[in-house]
Amino acid sequence: MTEKLLLRVLQGEPVTRVPVWLMRQAGRYLPEYRATRSQAGSFLDLCFNPELAEEVTLQPIRRYGFDGAILFSDILIVPFGLGQPVRFEEGKGPILEPIEDASGLSRLDFESFELKVSGIYETVRRVRSSLPQETTLIGFAGAPWTVATYMIEGGSSKDFAKTKAFAYRDPAGFSQLIDILVEATGQYLFGQIEAGADCVKLFDSWAGALSESHFESIVIEPTRRLVTMLREKYPDVPVIGFPRGAGANYTEFVARTGVDAVAIDTNVPLAWASEHLQTRLPLQGNLDPIALIAGGDALDTEVDRILEGLANGPHIFNLGHGILPSTPLENVERLVRRIRDHRS
Amino acid sequence: MTEKLLLRVLQGEPVTRVPVWLMRQAGRYLPEYRATRSQAGSFLDLCFNPELAEEVTLQPIRRYGFDGAILFSDILIVPFGLGQPVRFEEGKGPILEPIEDASGLSRLDFESFELKVSGIYETVRRVRSSLPQETTLIGFAGAPWTVATYMIEGGSSKDFAKTKAFAYRDPAGFSQLIDILVEATGQYLFGQIEAGADCVKLFDSWAGALSESHFESIVIEPTRRLVTMLREKYPDVPVIGFPRGAGANYTEFVARTGVDAVAIDTNVPLAWASEHLQTRLPLQGNLDPIALIAGGDALDTEVDRILEGLANGPHIFNLGHGILPSTPLENVERLVRRIRDHRS
Repeated sequence: MTEKLLLRVLQGEPVTRVPVWLMRQAGRYLPEYRATRSQAGSFLDLCFNPELAEEVTLQPIRRYGFDGAILFSDILIVPFGLGQPVRFEEGKGPILEPIEDASGLSRLDFESFELKVSGIYETVRRVRSSLPQETTLIGFAGAPWTVATYMIEGGSSKDFAKTKAFAYRDPAGFSQLIDILVEATGQYLFGQIEAGADCVKLFDSWAGALSESHFESIVIEPTRRLVTMLREKYPDVPVIGFPRGAGANYTEFVARTGVDAVAIDTNVPLAWASEHLQTRLPLQGNLDPIALIAGGDALDTEVDRILEGLANGPHIFNLGHGILPSTPLENVERLVRRIRDHRS
Repeated sequence: MTEKLLLRVLQGEPVTRVPVWLMRQAGRYLPEYRATRSQAGSFLDLCFNPELAEEVTLQPIRRYGFDGAILFSDILIVPFGLGQPVRFEEGKGPILEPIEDASGLSRLDFESFELKVSGIYETVRRVRSSLPQETTLIGFAGAPWTVATYMIEGGSSKDFAKTKAFAYRDPAGFSQLIDILVEATGQYLFGQIEAGADCVKLFDSWAGALSESHFESIVIEPTRRLVTMLREKYPDVPVIGFPRGAGANYTEFVARTGVDAVAIDTNVPLAWASEHLQTRLPLQGNLDPIALIAGGDALDTEVDRILEGLANGPHIFNLGHGILPSTPLENVERLVRRIRDHRS
């Protein structure tokens, strides 16, 4: 039986304390990250430099001893691997050459996918060999819907108007894109698992923007297919789903996708989550990243509320959204200590 | 008994068809709005010009015969009335001189509030007298949390970091601001009701960003106090709540604020809403604004799904979010016709 605490929770094994890691734990709030970042050219250069990407993946583990190390990478590696031009501009976010409609799908190229993304697998292998043996290595990818929004909008978006309009007006063409993404994302996660990931997480950051019918067809259904692909090949590797902002749709997501665990965003009420979700699977979450910036008593109160609210079932402590660059280092220290000292 | 169909639904009276209106129905998608807009100087000038504001309030009623006319105004009238400098820049959204902390509250001035906002009441009076008698006149205000975010951030925000940090670090000071907003918003809605509003709606556009504990203290509690103020003075004037993005927190909102009806955003699943919310009060919503842009069969399918999904209780058809400027006029026509032709 594994001594990896986080993996044990995901596999339904008993544990003596709540494991913790933080979304975006390798990132701009860490001075050592900013130092390493300055050694790389573009953001994608950093993602595809296995030595530097290994270093930034390990930095938060060295500093805080988190129970999980998440691969340092980006959800846009999949469109990049499919040949869509992707770049990151400082302060502007990602910029892609947008796919306007189904005819644009012919520009995607699956042939060279594995070659293009192989640098990421090398990072996973390196992290695997240098990570403390009690630390769970988390691979990840963006979920098809969220990745599709970037591919179609050409970057970030407020209302996903182009993506949704595509899906409403040409459901068959849109399904083709989703099918390509399911396939590529599955391959990509296979590669990460073969390279040493203990579990994988699917980030569906914009799941909350969808109507119930689109949530069903563009979030639940493709996620279910991805989980099935992964389960068939790697039955022991847990999959964490994160349909951020899904609200009351979280129950359907949990009931029907087959994920092994679900991450809940900051908005999700604990008694409801405990009753409707945690009775089925482990929950991960859901501290407000701004409470971590605020620190002090407010932070302690929120941490305790979450630890107690989710004490009736398996729980991995995390934020409800990524850690913000302005987070004081000592507040992260305080958070980790408080979770470690907690005994329910 | 009133012949106003929308008001009848809000008052729990039987109706023969589902009433419809659209959030932001007076706005940039209408050529006649753009023509009137060009006659005013700033956006605030338009809000405070009763003649022009009346005109744009009535334009969508003339064109589509919506069952409700919502006052043309803005949720930032309240901070403006409290003396906080507010301006709107084309394409940039609102800009306010931000309140950084509790000491900034002393700059707010309640004394001249009624004088400053009285132009809005004049618009309501004018609309009241020119509106068809079957059309319900909807007054509105921003809910305290959402208005507070603009007052503290100084405009729009992605993560509400300053506002939440204020609330976490200085709960007493933040409560002072919320108290001021409850008081001012109550007065402001009294004024609208006295001028002729049949019902009022509280827009809490950013309610979904809050943790459960803040949702309780900054959304539910102030809304409950506002509803109590309104109910005591105007027991027959229904209040519609709209805690957008509240997810599973919608149930607590409905159970504890005392609102007469609740607007649901696009993400809310219908069977869940029907079972947990509509059994308690009328629901308003929740078409995806992008389905309205897409039009055609996709629009019809979504409209029918919503009409059927909410057919077991009182329902007012609306979008789940405001209508977008790029919405084709003929799609709105198609929507209204489809709702009117529907018999459950």
